[in-house]
Amino acid sequence: MVTLGEILIELNAVTSGPLRHVNYFEKHVAGSEANYCVAFVRLGNNCVYIGRVGRDEFGHNAIEWLRGKGVNVDHVKFDDNPTGIFFVQRDYPVPLHSESIYYRKGSAGSRLSPEDVDENLVRGGDLVHSTGITLAISSSARDSVFKAFSLNGNRSFDTNIRLKLWTPEEARTTIMKLLKDYPVKYLITDVDDSRILVGESDPDRASAILREYAEVVVMKQGPKGASLYHDGGKYFSPGYSVPVEDVTGAGDALGGTFLSLVMSGFSMEKALDYAIVSSTLNVMIRGDQENLPGLSEIEAFLKEMDKK
Amino acid sequence: MVTLGEILIELNAVTSGPLRHVNYFEKHVAGSEANYCVAFVRLGNNCVYIGRVGRDEFGHNAIEWLRGKGVNVDHVKFDDNPTGIFFVQRDYPVPLHSESIYYRKGSAGSRLSPEDVDENLVRGGDLVHSTGITLAISSSARDSVFKAFSLNGNRSFDTNIRLKLWTPEEARTTIMKLLKDYPVKYLITDVDDSRILVGESDPDRASAILREYAEVVVMKQGPKGASLYHDGGKYFSPGYSVPVEDVTGAGDALGGTFLSLVMSGFSMEKALDYAIVSSTLNVMIRGDQENLPGLSEIEAFLKEMDKK
Amino acid sequence: MVTLGEILIELNAVTSGPLRHVNYFEKHVAGSEANYCVAFVRLGNNCVYIGRVGRDEFGHNAIEWLRGKGVNVDHVKFDDNPTGIFFVQRDYPVPLHSESIYYRKGSAGSRLSPEDVDENLVRGGDLVHSTGITLAISSSARDSVFKAFSLNGNRSFDTNIRLKLWTPEEARTTIMKLLKDYPVKYLITDVDDSRILVGESDPDRASAILREYAEVVVMKQGPKGASLYHDGGKYFSPGYSVPVEDVTGAGDALGGTFLSLVMSGFSMEKALDYAIVSSTLNVMIRGDQENLPGLSEIEAFLKEMDKK
Amino acid sequence: MVTLGEILIELNAVTSGPLRHVNYFEKHVAGSEANYCVAFVRLGNNCVYIGRVGRDEFGHNAIEWLRGKGVNVDHVKFDDNPTGIFFVQRDYPVPLHSESIYYRKGSAGSRLSPEDVDENLVRGGDLVHSTGITLAISSSARDSVFKAFSLNGNRSFDTNIRLKLWTPEEARTTIMKLLKDYPVKYLITDVDDSRILVGESDPDRASAILREYAEVVVMKQGPKGASLYHDGGKYFSPGYSVPVEDVTGAGDALGGTFLSLVMSGFSMEKALDYAIVSSTLNVMIRGDQENLPGLSEIEAFLKEMDKK
Amino acid sequence: MVTLGEILIELNAVTSGPLRHVNYFEKHVAGSEANYCVAFVRLGNNCVYIGRVGRDEFGHNAIEWLRGKGVNVDHVKFDDNPTGIFFVQRDYPVPLHSESIYYRKGSAGSRLSPEDVDENLVRGGDLVHSTGITLAISSSARDSVFKAFSLNGNRSFDTNIRLKLWTPEEARTTIMKLLKDYPVKYLITDVDDSRILVGESDPDRASAILREYAEVVVMKQGPKGASLYHDGGKYFSPGYSVPVEDVTGAGDALGGTFLSLVMSGFSMEKALDYAIVSSTLNVMIRGDQENLPGLSEIEAFLKEMDKK
Amino acid sequence: MVTLGEILIELNAVTSGPLRHVNYFEKHVAGSEANYCVAFVRLGNNCVYIGRVGRDEFGHNAIEWLRGKGVNVDHVKFDDNPTGIFFVQRDYPVPLHSESIYYRKGSAGSRLSPEDVDENLVRGGDLVHSTGITLAISSSARDSVFKAFSLNGNRSFDTNIRLKLWTPEEARTTIMKLLKDYPVKYLITDVDDSRILVGESDPDRASAILREYAEVVVMKQGPKGASLYHDGGKYFSPGYSVPVEDVTGAGDALGGTFLSLVMSGFSMEKALDYAIVSSTLNVMIRGDQENLPGLSEIEAFLKEMDKK
Repeated sequence: MVTLGEILIELNAVTSGPLRHVNYFEKHVAGSEANYCVAFVRLGNNCVYIGRVGRDEFGHNAIEWLRGKGVNVDHVKFDDNPTGIFFVQRDYPVPLHSESIYYRKGSAGSRLSPEDVDENLVRGGDLVHSTGITLAISSSARDSVFKAFSLNGNRSFDTNIRLKLWTPEEARTTIMKLLKDYPVKYLITDVDDSRILVGESDPDRASAILREYAEVVVMKQGPKGASLYHDGGKYFSPGYSVPVEDVTGAGDALGGTFLSLVMSGFSMEKALDYAIVSSTLNVMIRGDQENLPGLSEIEAFLKEMDKK
Repeated sequence: MVTLGEILIELNAVTSGPLRHVNYFEKHVAGSEANYCVAFVRLGNNCVYIGRVGRDEFGHNAIEWLRGKGVNVDHVKFDDNPTGIFFVQRDYPVPLHSESIYYRKGSAGSRLSPEDVDENLVRGGDLVHSTGITLAISSSARDSVFKAFSLNGNRSFDTNIRLKLWTPEEARTTIMKLLKDYPVKYLITDVDDSRILVGESDPDRASAILREYAEVVVMKQGPKGASLYHDGGKYFSPGYSVPVEDVTGAGDALGGTFLSLVMSGFSMEKALDYAIVSSTLNVMIRGDQENLPGLSEIEAFLKEMDKK
Repeated sequence: MVTLGEILIELNAVTSGPLRHVNYFEKHVAGSEANYCVAFVRLGNNCVYIGRVGRDEFGHNAIEWLRGKGVNVDHVKFDDNPTGIFFVQRDYPVPLHSESIYYRKGSAGSRLSPEDVDENLVRGGDLVHSTGITLAISSSARDSVFKAFSLNGNRSFDTNIRLKLWTPEEARTTIMKLLKDYPVKYLITDVDDSRILVGESDPDRASAILREYAEVVVMKQGPKGASLYHDGGKYFSPGYSVPVEDVTGAGDALGGTFLSLVMSGFSMEKALDYAIVSSTLNVMIRGDQENLPGLSEIEAFLKEMDKK
Repeated sequence: MVTLGEILIELNAVTSGPLRHVNYFEKHVAGSEANYCVAFVRLGNNCVYIGRVGRDEFGHNAIEWLRGKGVNVDHVKFDDNPTGIFFVQRDYPVPLHSESIYYRKGSAGSRLSPEDVDENLVRGGDLVHSTGITLAISSSARDSVFKAFSLNGNRSFDTNIRLKLWTPEEARTTIMKLLKDYPVKYLITDVDDSRILVGESDPDRASAILREYAEVVVMKQGPKGASLYHDGGKYFSPGYSVPVEDVTGAGDALGGTFLSLVMSGFSMEKALDYAIVSSTLNVMIRGDQENLPGLSEIEAFLKEMDKK
Repeated sequence: MVTLGEILIELNAVTSGPLRHVNYFEKHVAGSEANYCVAFVRLGNNCVYIGRVGRDEFGHNAIEWLRGKGVNVDHVKFDDNPTGIFFVQRDYPVPLHSESIYYRKGSAGSRLSPEDVDENLVRGGDLVHSTGITLAISSSARDSVFKAFSLNGNRSFDTNIRLKLWTPEEARTTIMKLLKDYPVKYLITDVDDSRILVGESDPDRASAILREYAEVVVMKQGPKGASLYHDGGKYFSPGYSVPVEDVTGAGDALGGTFLSLVMSGFSMEKALDYAIVSSTLNVMIRGDQENLPGLSEIEAFLKEMDKK
Repeated sequence: MVTLGEILIELNAVTSGPLRHVNYFEKHVAGSEANYCVAFVRLGNNCVYIGRVGRDEFGHNAIEWLRGKGVNVDHVKFDDNPTGIFFVQRDYPVPLHSESIYYRKGSAGSRLSPEDVDENLVRGGDLVHSTGITLAISSSARDSVFKAFSLNGNRSFDTNIRLKLWTPEEARTTIMKLLKDYPVKYLITDVDDSRILVGESDPDRASAILREYAEVVVMKQGPKGASLYHDGGKYFSPGYSVPVEDVTGAGDALGGTFLSLVMSGFSMEKALDYAIVSSTLNVMIRGDQENLPGLSEIEAFLKEMDKK
């Protein structure tokens, strides 16, 4: 897989509640596409990351972490602007929800530009992937996604609309243009994003519309589970109820695990069942990538659930 | 609002279980009336605090914290005795319950005396508030509440019986005398306190008796929710199920939010619904005041719950 | 009670998830038999520990802790080999489960040998206790248990099969030989161990088989509760649903509390009800012994549950 | 005192070394002018803060903290841009030094503009104060300082050149223009800044040049101490050797303490001796304002040093 | 050794600076006489503790800890009053100094009374020891010391004057009366206490006066070291320069180590050299008893110092 | 560089003092040869690691960390035995010293065997490096070093004698045999090891003897600095005085930095000066590799020192 996006440093609140009263923050490496990439690699496939980080400690932090996890970071560029960061506020004002507070305006990652997109690399990938976040962070980043999608027909896309980065109107216009210009093989989305994109939050109806632009639609439904829509029909995989520490990154865990297993030859239904495990484990900790499971861990989880 | 009471420093166990095995404690500012005051201020109203703190680091700690939150502390006196403190033991021996271990005997706060009650200040308040704790900590503190209640007919009272501070008999005699001498507009209480005060723990029956002394009775029922009784009838607002970190202060959050919103012109029913949100958020963290929400946070919480 | 086993130092993950991403570990004293002993002592009975610890900081740590709790450690020997340790990985890959990673091969504790078993001491005990772990750690430790069991007819045994220490086949052969040679008064086991030992995981059927070797069988069933089988019939005591921090040691808490109360003259049924409380409190914290309750704590727990 | 500047949230590394390997950060309120203000208030004088913070949790954090400490924050405006933050890397690559990594470009604080400068307020102040940082963060902030300095002749200025915010050339041009247009009563600076401003790092020679623009020059010399130059001659006050945790904010502690005591009527020499104590205590902790001492603390410090 | 005193729970600031800004506290067991006792036991001698603790978690904490360390706590009584506690503020306002903030008025420990002093036990001790703190905390505690000293001529006493517990005048009158009535074998004191007691802070002159009441005087001189005065002359043992975390308890470490080694047959000079090592290690950590060394640790320390 | 050794997981005491009283441990990746490798890579050269780690979380931890830092771990094998670990006890019983407590007997790393030594790889390396630790951990590991040294004449060796792993006699015999059979280009050692190896702890005399087996001898002298001996004469580079957190790994930092810079073409004298900086930074933190500096950091350090 080749993916384009922004790697971020996450500063997660050690205690929950409003950030004004949080005294300690825990550092993690995050960013939707990076989360996808690590999920991908954990399950035995390769992932090449295209993007930029700052020529600073946080940039080196991100690169060393991803390289350690097995992600190919040879194409990541160092940029003079600072590495983007965000804070996570947990359980406030909504219990079990998390809020991201970004410091990423003008960041190194947002300076991703079409010249960073190595044409041969992208053409040679089995899958080229990006998300709505990369479309939102800057016009050059957006252009980079359009360029990459123009180079390879095996595309996947996670809508990931972040309303702190753009308006619903901007999100809809840009994402729908991308999907119209470059229909994807795999579209990962959820009911909130669907309402923004196609004015429909019913999973079935929204997916029916979105399937015009995608062979496969994965519709995430939070703790309830996720649905899968493709020519073979609909499949629903229910979620598991576990103690929630931080939901940030759970959707990426689901999407990355799903794509990696499908690329490995799993049936999409089984891939979705496994992907649900990945997102379930993900919400039990702070940090987006630390709990991404390998195949044996997913199977140990499922085996234990079968007992009950 | 004008309130009288003792501000305490809370030392909350970082890990749950018996205190003998707790190695680290986290410091917070607490005290029932201070909790009420901050809840009051967070929702846009003013609160003047009458009381004493020690001329020590913990006393300054309390004053700086409350002043920072917007509480008027100009009437708080510094006293030579030490600022009262308490420890919180969590989840032991009863899961999801907390136990307070006080070091407040002879504390600065317990030396609150009638001379500290500025008559003009109390007369000018829209509401004068205190709790059973202030009645219990010393005779001079008790006299101060009686004096303050004699000066202003707009009274609210939270029974807050702490059996580590006095016997059930003492609590009943003193509180019932106060209520008889000075019937209140708002009485905040719960089923355990009601059994002690009027020998009745059924919410409806207890409230019927208590309404002889109060225009409005708010009957807290723990995680189940709370009931409201007034001339307009009964209203029950159910609680929300969330992960519990520490229940200390949840009742104050409920009472303070209720009173503040009522003073702001909300209907009592809506105020109670909102107050439940406040106490719900409160149990999710250690510390009594850090999670007290503003109006927008309460509404964000309710909006999200509506989705489900 | 006289017990034989290995005291271990436990290094519990401060954050849950795979150990590779855990940065901090919290130290506790553990070991199944030590857990039993402390549970025993907390409820007013005496416990003598037979075993070895290293002549190192961790060995002294273990001895000072147990002596502090009131365990008789006069018979513990210091050995040149290091004190055994283990790490606890929590909630990964299975939520609410814990995994132990041992560094105990060749440890001081595994060098327990028959010469350490003081005959007079064991003969004089009201109960001699050990577990499947002691049988598994070394042949000299196994021989020590056989020797001790040969000396005193009042025996109790917890099967505690750890598949990281031996194979199911080894476990079955050794444990069944012990039980055949030396039938016990109290056998504490669970459904997983029963399947290994007698090929049956149905609580009733497994217990029926096991009662050939035991007057009393306590069959633990995880969070569901536990069943008791003896001549007086079957008794089931249900578990309580609480937030789980770490389940390590919960079975020992149950077994130790049960045995101690039975020795104190409680009916076995009541002892089991109380033992369930002990294991319930145990799963709410990291550490195996810190939450072991005394009688008054168990009763406070039950009184509160009765209210609901 | 009236001061203009940017309040920042400081995220200080809990462990020293390169930030890529720091896992936890501790939050504090900082910003040079805020540090001055708190030092000022701690010693019994009033300080009014002019500036902007974000309409976000960090902005509220800053306001509540400063209000709690007794700073007048009634003139601080909330702005739609985010509150500026910075990270502190300690002891790397230079032992006992700290490095600030800013995320303050386009921050709320940088949007301070002349319209925020209340003319009556500034005219009525006994002293108007700002620093080189406020000159550097934006042109509107710079204009605000020039406006404020034009309104009141009792000015103080700390050069505080931060080469991550502007070039030496920009710093020199802007600061020297300010000092030429508006000579100050008190100029606080150090040898590094002096070299940039007047090409001279010898304390005596640099001060001689700078005194053309300032009645009083305080020349900080790091751990060695500080010198004072005015019509009455030169005075040197030596530093104290203590364990260093973080030097960030030490210069502000010195400057703020000096100014506050001078305003209180202390001789400048004595004020400098006391100010050295303030900066000494400051380097012993993380956080810029927590160790700012009151008069009695400074005197306790000096009394103890006299013993030795 | 038999000792009388109050065992306290110490809550040591995790970060240094004024307590108002300390968010976390670390729990330890302390109390001067308990420190002496543990130092004594660590070096191979027995120590019986006479005193009271609360019937609360902190009381059990203290007893379990001391029993674990090998102290004989069979004579400690449980009392209905709470266990005394104190907070430690470090490095503020005086660097490398610590301040104790007590919550011990009316504590269980202060209720030590002559009836607690088992006459046979005290008569049978090789040494009976107490400190100025026990004299200060209550009249019944003071009477207990007088009674114990009347029962056994082998007495040691540490002056340990705490001006937060009594006035210099009270300290002098009481301590000097004790020493006149019951001259001691070993008097441990320091220059500050000497000034209060005999109006003389020069080590030699103060000791000359004090030796009227003591066969041996150990005069502590802080980080400089300590002097020993007895019939055999004067001996000075210099201190070691190490990083200081918390000096609380360092004097007890010195005194307890000295006494224990003298009782073991060491020359007093060598005992003092070793005792200096004990107090040196003691200041490097928070907690008064954790770093108390055994003989082999002291010798390892000295061997390493010899290398340099 | 090609290096052979054991990668370990380090559990460093969060608080100093005897491990029995340390409650929290911080995890790091360590092992002398791994430290060398990372130092090497940080300065721009390549390093290939030959060794084994467990097929467990700690093994993956080590590999991901080293890969992240840029070390070539393609030749590291996974082994069924567990990854070796060690605990670090700091400042006790000797201030500023650290003690390692190993759990590495039979570890995966100790199973390094000659078959793991890829002949082409070793032959192709510019430098082949190992240490006395690898010689000590097992006979197969020792044989691996002998094999590797037989394959490539460009050898470097750090004596690193650990008396917990073998006796002085074993160390001397084995190391001297290696040096005789395979004289090295660079020998890194210290005065303690020299005394064991050649009975001489004077730096000059010991180096004179050792130079029979080495073109270049680097003689570490702790905080004092280090000396360099080669045909060009002797050069001494003094150490810097800084606050010490943990000295573990400081020697490896020095050796790795020295070798890497020499390989990059620096003069040996300058390389040693820079290496001293590396070891100086290393002692300021827990963890052996986190503070290993790059070239720009070393130069920033030296530039600042020049100022003073």
